[in-house]
Amino acid sequence: MKTLSVAILGFGTVGSGVYETIQRHQNRLQKITGFPISVSAILVEHPEKHQNKAGDAIITADIDKIASNPAIDVVFEAIVGREPAFTYLKHCIEKGKHIITANKEMFAFHGKELTELAARNQVTIGFEATTAGGIPIIQTVKRLLNVNQIDKLQAILNGTSNYILTKMREEKATFSHALKEAQQLGYAEADPTNDIEGYDAFYKLMILSELIFAKQPVWKKVRRTGITGITPEMHIEEAHANRRIKHIAEITFTNDTISASIEPVAVPETHPLYAIDGVSNAIHLQADILGPLTLVGPGAGSLPTASAMIEDFCHIWGHPEVPASPVAALAFP
Amino acid sequence: MKTLSVAILGFGTVGSGVYETIQRHQNRLQKITGFPISVSAILVEHPEKHQNKAGDAIITADIDKIASNPAIDVVFEAIVGREPAFTYLKHCIEKGKHIITANKEMFAFHGKELTELAARNQVTIGFEATTAGGIPIIQTVKRLLNVNQIDKLQAILNGTSNYILTKMREEKATFSHALKEAQQLGYAEADPTNDIEGYDAFYKLMILSELIFAKQPVWKKVRRTGITGITPEMHIEEAHANRRIKHIAEITFTNDTISASIEPVAVPETHPLYAIDGVSNAIHLQADILGPLTLVGPGAGSLPTASAMIEDFCHIWGHPEVPASPVAALAFP
Repeated sequence: MKTLSVAILGFGTVGSGVYETIQRHQNRLQKITGFPISVSAILVEHPEKHQNKAGDAIITADIDKIASNPAIDVVFEAIVGREPAFTYLKHCIEKGKHIITANKEMFAFHGKELTELAARNQVTIGFEATTAGGIPIIQTVKRLLNVNQIDKLQAILNGTSNYILTKMREEKATFSHALKEAQQLGYAEADPTNDIEGYDAFYKLMILSELIFAKQPVWKKVRRTGITGITPEMHIEEAHANRRIKHIAEITFTNDTISASIEPVAVPETHPLYAIDGVSNAIHLQADILGPLTLVGPGAGSLPTASAMIEDFCHIWGHPEVPASPVAALAFP
Repeated sequence: MKTLSVAILGFGTVGSGVYETIQRHQNRLQKITGFPISVSAILVEHPEKHQNKAGDAIITADIDKIASNPAIDVVFEAIVGREPAFTYLKHCIEKGKHIITANKEMFAFHGKELTELAARNQVTIGFEATTAGGIPIIQTVKRLLNVNQIDKLQAILNGTSNYILTKMREEKATFSHALKEAQQLGYAEADPTNDIEGYDAFYKLMILSELIFAKQPVWKKVRRTGITGITPEMHIEEAHANRRIKHIAEITFTNDTISASIEPVAVPETHPLYAIDGVSNAIHLQADILGPLTLVGPGAGSLPTASAMIEDFCHIWGHPEVPASPVAALAFP
């Protein structure tokens, strides 16, 4: 009987979460796909540091050992940054491998090109994990809102900045104090620029734009303001008016024009994102038949991200009961 | 070119919403299904009251005119109550028609039997609209959480009772005052028993139980307490402790046993259902890989319910996005 053979690129928080999830849920995965799954190879920068950490999987720094191995069916990509991830994935797609990526920066830049390349090579790209962690927003748009058109979307797409804003409000703490706490808890990195300046949310918003509207706004025209200028006093002042400061990523499509922004916004108590606290992410969208829909869940973390990737995996190998969703085609009739 | 021909059973708020949505979104539906759609027949109790309200559609009180018409492909059912809806749908399924229903009471009672009958007749049943209005909770569970297992679910499944509780809290109003207001706004019926005593939420919870756990708890063992005993004083008291009274439908699955309840619960500010006000519905679930996921949206209404039904329609007629040919070969060797 054939075994589905997969490779994982990157073995940090996300890559090892994918590995653990595949090991732990062998039975479920076999039931869904019809085949046993085996992790055959893991790509890391320094293979000597990772020996004996992943059963029989080959640990290698050489992408060609994965791309050129005809037995490997699917590649999970959990590297950070545009390169070498983009080059690696192009290589794998050209060799006929399905791709599942969690790499938001790379996919915001190169998602369209990779998608077209995948279509030409008759493979699929899953990118649920690039946006809003475990929340199935990509597949909700792709598979569940086929007739509905989305006019507007507001979201909290970065758990780190939301955690910092929450701590500042709850404890009347300064930005730098809350940031330090986030770093101690592992929610923020040593260099937190990507999170607190809104770059991370920006990449995710661009991926959503491409998915929903089949194009992105001109990047330089997107207002992007971080949260470093927020003070405890601002939180107190807004609280008096029953408002909370949230770092909101927003995108609207009117008169054939996309406008987008990422900036701190004081939202009233009635706003669907008012109650979203801590490291959670949330997406609030307006669909033209359904009306408002909000999804809330974990925006990052090893298992939530692995969940998004492993569900993508089942969409590749699962049953054709799953329908198409030409949302992009619909957006431009 | 073939036209997809559909019938609508019932022409109240939901049935007419489906009719309008099909008329308005002809282009989108044709793009997705590949065919023009036509509403050929509408079933009502008193046809004489509905003449000239639905273009060329035949208005009839005779289900046999629909069930025995081989041209009709899909039947949208928007009747209230178990009978005659159940008998009608059985009849239509046996004649090879796909079914899309919004009838929660009927489907809670007979969903399993109808599903089995549909499988034998090689047709499908869409029931997204039975539960939580426009929120795509059924399809999220069916299509997006394939590997994840759901352990627990808490939800606000009745917009009317949630509206009443919200008004009581915000305006320090009595139950009967808030109920009257809900009736004036059309949110509550003249006989509000189903909503305020939790029967409506109970039916929806049973449908979710069948979907998620493939069985239902013994109905008599489900605690069901309505909201008629709630006073303005209770709201005030809970508000002092930063809690809000919500009518919560809950279901858990532990040690092979399902336990379920529908009852007023005072939830703290950190609870994911605390901020759900007015006629909104919300479902908060715990999935074992993903973690917590909350969906919020309109729990009723003509267009949100029509949205759920028309998206179900596209799942019947849509095309498989994957697999591309090499995948198909592997998935079905």
